[in-house]
Amino acid sequence: MAFDSIETPFGKINKALGGSGSYFSLAASQFCPTSLVGVVGSDFSDKYRAPLRKRNIDLSGLEQAKGKTFAWGGKYSFDLNNRDSLFTHLNVMADFQPKLQPHQRGIGFVFLGNMHPTIQLKTLSQIKKPKFVGLDTMNFWIEKAPKELKKILKLADIFVINDSEARELSKEHNLVKAAKKIIRMMETIYPRPSPHKRREAATLIIKRGEYGLLMFRSAFPSTSGRGVRGEGLSMQVFHLPGFPLENVTDPTGAGDSFAGGFMGYLAKTGDVSWNNLKRACAAGSVMASFDVEKLGTRRLQEIKDSDIKRRFAEFKNLTNF
Amino acid sequence: MAFDSIETPFGKINKALGGSGSYFSLAASQFCPTSLVGVVGSDFSDKYRAPLRKRNIDLSGLEQAKGKTFAWGGKYSFDLNNRDSLFTHLNVMADFQPKLQPHQRGIGFVFLGNMHPTIQLKTLSQIKKPKFVGLDTMNFWIEKAPKELKKILKLADIFVINDSEARELSKEHNLVKAAKKIIRMMETIYPRPSPHKRREAATLIIKRGEYGLLMFRSAFPSTSGRGVRGEGLSMQVFHLPGFPLENVTDPTGAGDSFAGGFMGYLAKTGDVSWNNLKRACAAGSVMASFDVEKLGTRRLQEIKDSDIKRRFAEFKNLTNF
Repeated sequence: MAFDSIETPFGKINKALGGSGSYFSLAASQFCPTSLVGVVGSDFSDKYRAPLRKRNIDLSGLEQAKGKTFAWGGKYSFDLNNRDSLFTHLNVMADFQPKLQPHQRGIGFVFLGNMHPTIQLKTLSQIKKPKFVGLDTMNFWIEKAPKELKKILKLADIFVINDSEARELSKEHNLVKAAKKIIRMMETIYPRPSPHKRREAATLIIKRGEYGLLMFRSAFPSTSGRGVRGEGLSMQVFHLPGFPLENVTDPTGAGDSFAGGFMGYLAKTGDVSWNNLKRACAAGSVMASFDVEKLGTRRLQEIKDSDIKRRFAEFKNLTNF
Repeated sequence: MAFDSIETPFGKINKALGGSGSYFSLAASQFCPTSLVGVVGSDFSDKYRAPLRKRNIDLSGLEQAKGKTFAWGGKYSFDLNNRDSLFTHLNVMADFQPKLQPHQRGIGFVFLGNMHPTIQLKTLSQIKKPKFVGLDTMNFWIEKAPKELKKILKLADIFVINDSEARELSKEHNLVKAAKKIIRMMETIYPRPSPHKRREAATLIIKRGEYGLLMFRSAFPSTSGRGVRGEGLSMQVFHLPGFPLENVTDPTGAGDSFAGGFMGYLAKTGDVSWNNLKRACAAGSVMASFDVEKLGTRRLQEIKDSDIKRRFAEFKNLTNF
C-alpha cells in the first residue's frame, strides 16, 4: 500500500492511493471477494480507504502502524516506455511483519505481492490450506535475496514476472529458454510438507509491457515427482497481446491490475485448468488495459462489470482466428 | 531477386539465393501457383533457379539482364534485433523496368514488393483485372518518394509495413493512431478508373518483428464512396504474436516470407473476408517462423505441407482462448 505521486505527459497526481495492494485488489474485487494483508501509516485516512471499501475489499488485515505510509514518486518519459523513480520512502513498510487475521488463514487463492521473499514465505506459512498460490517479485530481490526467492518459487503455482526479470533470473536472453529454466527452478521439489507443496503444474507468466504476455506451463504436473528434467522439458505456451489502445495515460499499476484480474477470475471460477488459465490471462489483461487509461487507480475505481465483459469479448475478436 | 551474404552469431552464408522475390515466392508457392516478375543478372545461374523451379514457381517473368545480380550483405548483432548492411550493390536492379508476360496480365492476386512506387505502379497497370493487391514499401521510399507512394497506396487492398515505417509515414507514435491515419490515406478515393480502384475495405498490417503483427481494417468498405473520414473512423483490429521459438538463426526474409504465406493463403482460398484475412495472417506467420530457423532460404526450401499444418494448429493453441 502506497501513496503515489505520478507525472506523465498527460497529467499529474500527488499522494494518491497506490501500491500493488491497491491496484491488485481493485482489479480482483471485480471478480471475487478480496481480502488484503499489508501495512499503512497513521496518515492513511478514510479518504484512502473509501474507494477500497466501495468495492467491499476486506481491510481487516491492513495493519495501521505508527509513522508514515510507504510513498513513491515517479515521472514517465514522453512515450511512457521509461520512468524515473523520483523518490521511494519505505516508512512503515521497513519493519512490516505480516499477521493474518484468523478468517484469512482459510483463504484458498493467495497472491504474494512483490516483497522480500522471506516476508512472502511468512505470509504463505500462515495460510492453512492454500489451493493456488500466485507470486510476484522484482529485479531487486533476484539480486539481493536469490536463495530465499528460490525457496518461495517452489511453493508457488504461478509466478508472474516481466521479461527483464525473467532474463536476469535465468541468465538466458531467449524467453522460451528462460521460461524452461525458471519452470525447472519451480519444479524441483522443495522438502516441505503438504499443504504448502504445489499441487498443480508449475506455471510462469512473462509480462512484456505493451506487447502483452507469454504463459508457460510444464506439460506434466510436479506431483508426478519428476523434479528436475533434462533438455526435453515439454511446455504448453500461450500468448496474449496488450490491448491496442489509442490513448494510454499512465502505465502505473498495469502489472498489479493484471495479477488482480487474473487471480480474481481464477478464484471466481475455481478452475485452474490450462484453458481457464488462458481466460484468466484475458481477464487480467482487460483490467490492465483499463488501468492505464487514466491516472493512478481512477479508471479501476469507476469501471463496471459491463465494461469488463465488453472488453473481454473485444480481446477474443482481437486474438482468436 | 538478390545474392545475399549474411552473417549471424549462428552462421554465415555467402552469395546465396535471396531477395524479397525469392523469400516471397518460396513461401507463397506452398499454397498456390506463384509467378515472379523481376530482374537478375547474367550471373544468376541454374544453381539459383533450381530451388525455385522445384516449387514450380513460374520464372518466365524473371528478366535476365546483362550485368550482375543485385547483391546485399548484412551482419546481425548478438540478439538478432539489429543488423548492419555491409554492402548494397543495385547492379541490374538500377535500370529495371517491369514487363509482364501475357499470361501474367490475367493474375488476380498481386503482391507489389518493396520497390520505387513508380515501378510498383507500372507493374500494377499491366494487370488487367487485379482482384486483390498487396503492397510493401520501406523508409527509403517514404522519405524519397512520398507523393508516388501515396498514389499507389490508394490502389492497394492491403499495405504491409513495419512499426517504424508506420510511425514515420503517419508521424504518430501510437500505432492505433498511426493505423487510422494510414487507412485514411488509403481510403481517400484516387481519381483513377476501374479496374484498378480498390474493391475491398482498406487493410493495413503493421509488423512488429519478434512481437508479431497488428492488422487493421476500416469497418466500411471504401466502395461506399465515403473517402476521408473524421475522428470517428471505426476499425476492426487483429493481433498475432511472433511464434515463440527457442532457436532463431537468421531473421532475413521473415517479412517477405510472411507476405508470401499471407498472399498465397488468400489466393488459394479466394476469400478476402475479415475472418479469412486473420487465417492468412497465421499462414504468413507460420512461414516467417520457419524462415528464421535456418540461414537464408534453406528452411523454406525444405519444409513440407505437414510441417505447415502442424505449426498452424500450434499457432491456434498459442493464441485462441
